[in-house]
Amino acid sequence: MQNRLYFNQIDTPRADKRKLVDSIRGEKNSVGYYNLPLQNIDEIMEFAERFDTSIESIVVLGIGGSSLGAKAVYEFLKPIEQPKRTLIFFESTDPLNIADLLKKINMKKTHFFVISKSGGTVETISIFKYIYAKNSNNSHYTFITDRGSNLDKFAKEIGSRRFYLPANVGGRFSVLSVVGLLPLVLCGVDIQLLLKGANNINQAFFEEGYLQDILLNKALFYAKNHTRYNINCIFAYSETLKYFTEWYVQLWGESLGKKQRHSTFNVGLTPIGLIGPKDQHSFLQLIMEGTRDKSITFIKLKKFEHEMYIPSTTLPHLESLDILNGVAFHDLINMQCDSVIESLKNQKEVPLDEIIIPAVNAQSIGELIYYYELLTSLVGELIDVDTYNQPGVEAGKIILKEKLEKQSFSL
Amino acid sequence: MQNRLYFNQIDTPRADKRKLVDSIRGEKNSVGYYNLPLQNIDEIMEFAERFDTSIESIVVLGIGGSSLGAKAVYEFLKPIEQPKRTLIFFESTDPLNIADLLKKINMKKTHFFVISKSGGTVETISIFKYIYAKNSNNSHYTFITDRGSNLDKFAKEIGSRRFYLPANVGGRFSVLSVVGLLPLVLCGVDIQLLLKGANNINQAFFEEGYLQDILLNKALFYAKNHTRYNINCIFAYSETLKYFTEWYVQLWGESLGKKQRHSTFNVGLTPIGLIGPKDQHSFLQLIMEGTRDKSITFIKLKKFEHEMYIPSTTLPHLESLDILNGVAFHDLINMQCDSVIESLKNQKEVPLDEIIIPAVNAQSIGELIYYYELLTSLVGELIDVDTYNQPGVEAGKIILKEKLEKQSFSL
Repeated sequence: MQNRLYFNQIDTPRADKRKLVDSIRGEKNSVGYYNLPLQNIDEIMEFAERFDTSIESIVVLGIGGSSLGAKAVYEFLKPIEQPKRTLIFFESTDPLNIADLLKKINMKKTHFFVISKSGGTVETISIFKYIYAKNSNNSHYTFITDRGSNLDKFAKEIGSRRFYLPANVGGRFSVLSVVGLLPLVLCGVDIQLLLKGANNINQAFFEEGYLQDILLNKALFYAKNHTRYNINCIFAYSETLKYFTEWYVQLWGESLGKKQRHSTFNVGLTPIGLIGPKDQHSFLQLIMEGTRDKSITFIKLKKFEHEMYIPSTTLPHLESLDILNGVAFHDLINMQCDSVIESLKNQKEVPLDEIIIPAVNAQSIGELIYYYELLTSLVGELIDVDTYNQPGVEAGKIILKEKLEKQSFSL
Repeated sequence: MQNRLYFNQIDTPRADKRKLVDSIRGEKNSVGYYNLPLQNIDEIMEFAERFDTSIESIVVLGIGGSSLGAKAVYEFLKPIEQPKRTLIFFESTDPLNIADLLKKINMKKTHFFVISKSGGTVETISIFKYIYAKNSNNSHYTFITDRGSNLDKFAKEIGSRRFYLPANVGGRFSVLSVVGLLPLVLCGVDIQLLLKGANNINQAFFEEGYLQDILLNKALFYAKNHTRYNINCIFAYSETLKYFTEWYVQLWGESLGKKQRHSTFNVGLTPIGLIGPKDQHSFLQLIMEGTRDKSITFIKLKKFEHEMYIPSTTLPHLESLDILNGVAFHDLINMQCDSVIESLKNQKEVPLDEIIIPAVNAQSIGELIYYYELLTSLVGELIDVDTYNQPGVEAGKIILKEKLEKQSFSL
């Protein structure tokens, strides 16, 4: 991937940049995701090789970090690499949604991954209980959880296969662990290539050079301007990246929206995912003329691997649009992106950059995922937050538990 | 619908509130959407009655305001009211997306609505040309555009049916016009009920009373705090409202992100659409502990019309989750919403409100749509912008045209 920055970089001494890289390097012992690109995947590959060939659908019962990463990768590749199996995600307690998804699967030809780090995620366990009451064939379930969790113990008791999250890998950083790799490999994704992409970025970042410089400059800019540009948009010009932007929203928002470690002030950067050209007809006006509170990262696909041309026909009264004749749709969409970038370059105070992905394949998305994980770690370090926890969501869970206990007591 | 505000209201004299309502009333001559709830729909109903019964799919070739509204209504109702026909939207020039959507339709059993207010929308015309080259049966196309546009002339020439956008109705305010009503009625949506919902809100707003007061208080709060709370989130607890939030994002962002009329300063409020409980596992941490730059509107469904219960089984080691036993999913999802609201009420400086929709039906979504249109008009008036134009998107279109002309010249 390429990345071009179109904003004025923060002047930072080389020594300070080295210190920043060192502080990230220093996290390697306590933050697990840095070790994922070079993990041993023998067990995963073996599981995939011996997997029941009659299974047609893979269902993930998981929410947030347990689903968004695999979904991003699967949906990115789907239009190009015909999936070996269908991948479906149950992520909501909305009964209409559950009923709708259940219609799409044949229980007998479906394998379920029950994914919950803590083992007690209310949404996941509720839906699991509902489905397990309909299909209690234990060989149709695989559990991914923390070693020793109650879910681990349950899975052991019923004799289902278990996999564990690696140490110190939080949900939103877990896509390159078993959480993402297992469902993806069963759907035919080349997970070795996915990890290779991640490792390319990993290696490049820890050596001085082009990519390290880009990531540092970008992180320094976002961090220094975190109160001025409190909104960071990704504007991706391909529908294939829609779920990548959803993954980004969790990664960025949940990692960086925190009380500062030293001041306890509330800080945070707000992520927004946009898809072009659609959102030119929705969100672009706000970017162009609204408050200067947003940075924009455009993401473009260099190759769409799909030749499709606008016919060279002239339609009466629509002759002015003959400039479209013979244009490939993949060129048109990139020209639309370039045109918006150019029009924004003429605007003052809208910090822009542009990422170009070479092609739709597992390596590209592996690179993009790892690039954003590193960027998140860097910005978190600079704005003085604990990037890897999420204490703010506990209060709501406790209140829900109280409500459920009260109701259960009154039944 | 009900709406409860949980923030301190701005103290505003009654006379000033009346003046604000009068200024909105004064827009009725120049802004068309206020007239839509009471429009005559005889022509639409007649079109639907005589419509070819062999048609199974309705395709909308349209983008932004030409698609988001109908999509919001269709997707809201779909899980409850089995659609009469499938409704599909072509909204992107991404060739992978076009190819994927084409696989879903049988050309011979599909009717196409080509929707472009100006008649020259690049995305819509490109895709139309592509599809028209494959199926040039003119009876399979209906055109919705401004009277006298080039697309109108073309449609006349080929003898296809034409409908016109009513005067002074911009794309993002057009869902209750032919733009939304025609595709929706053909899919079985009760458009009379949809308009009735809109009219309920319309009438209630222009009379002094509960709803007028709510809308005024909310608009005054958002406008007064537009630099402090520059981000306005909708957090809807049902997957059925996912596309409603996308419609909201266009309505809010494109209407309010502007140069001010009198100062020419860049102002704007940034819309974000969230779906619960999914986004509790993504965005909630940022709301709870991040910068106090967001207001949150929770939307809840009172009735899901779908009875589905968590089984009362005890699973070994998972006994602590037996509090879920026998709970209906529709109660669980609303308890999750209430728990998050309660936990946020304990946070300082996060302005909250709560909308409760009685049920999944056309009237409810009509009410919600019109409520948000009025709120947008009010806030636009208060922050001194022209709510109904979108001058910022033109620059990119001009650059694209230049690029296309250059390429066409060099071919």
